[in-house]
Amino acid sequence: MSSPVRIIGVDPGLQRTGWGVIDVVGNRLSFVACGTITSTAGDELAGRLVELYDGLEAVIAAHGPDEAAVEHTFVNTNPTATLKLGQARGVALLAPAKAGLSVAEYAPNAVKKAIVGAGHADKEQIQHMVRILLPKATWKGPDAADALAIAICHAHHRQTLARALRIAGA
Amino acid sequence: MSSPVRIIGVDPGLQRTGWGVIDVVGNRLSFVACGTITSTAGDELAGRLVELYDGLEAVIAAHGPDEAAVEHTFVNTNPTATLKLGQARGVALLAPAKAGLSVAEYAPNAVKKAIVGAGHADKEQIQHMVRILLPKATWKGPDAADALAIAICHAHHRQTLARALRIAGA
Repeated sequence: MSSPVRIIGVDPGLQRTGWGVIDVVGNRLSFVACGTITSTAGDELAGRLVELYDGLEAVIAAHGPDEAAVEHTFVNTNPTATLKLGQARGVALLAPAKAGLSVAEYAPNAVKKAIVGAGHADKEQIQHMVRILLPKATWKGPDAADALAIAICHAHHRQTLARALRIAGA
Repeated sequence: MSSPVRIIGVDPGLQRTGWGVIDVVGNRLSFVACGTITSTAGDELAGRLVELYDGLEAVIAAHGPDEAAVEHTFVNTNPTATLKLGQARGVALLAPAKAGLSVAEYAPNAVKKAIVGAGHADKEQIQHMVRILLPKATWKGPDAADALAIAICHAHHRQTLARALRIAGA
């Protein structure tokens, strides 16, 4: 039996950054914790990024994940929104990397496919499947559920990779 | 005579982040140091952001600026490039804020106007004026010169603000 691996998934956003921590043993997943870090709207941007960074740093210190996964999303329509998201995303990638974690990135469609089996699932379907896969998980708002979905997606990809390595005799 | 204030200007980019430090006493500017932090192309994004963050942290520790100014720029044409820049920019705002500095943001046109007197100056004109305003400054590549221009822009805005406060009797 393989040893447990703890994964943190992060769904970055300047206003709200969702996070979710799960444990993986073989192909068994279990819920550890999840939540949402908010930054104060109206504050200076640099200060809001510090709020996000400090929040993620505290979550990582509290739960000690081994690996991180961050959603690779972007807003296509509006450059200002894309820049804003990029800034939050930079901080969301930096915090686990500074803590020494490997940081994987998954496109939204890859996350949906790993959870629901299709790349075009809506938020309701995602939350429904996260509830089934992690029965003990509870959350307020969709950002923490999305972060758990990202962590689950990473768990699936790790297993697929491990299986491929076993088949290859590595 | 007012006491000297040390300003760091930052021109963020994932590939190359320029930085420039100047001292301001009244309306006299003097060059302290400048340079460019590069991240390793081909490395994982999170690792590259750590390179930028650690580089800026080291520069701030070495030169001890009192205030920071970061260019507020974005690429309008390409969402992928905008997201990439946003991520670097998030880290460039975070590093001085985590060090306890106030972080001002200036649009490229504001920087050009402060340096050259017009919002549509090209990079050559900017570098020419930075050479005149900071005769002791030398740099390799335009990013460090741009960062010095941002620091000078912040110095001008500070003075304007201080003058306004004096006139108002504050």
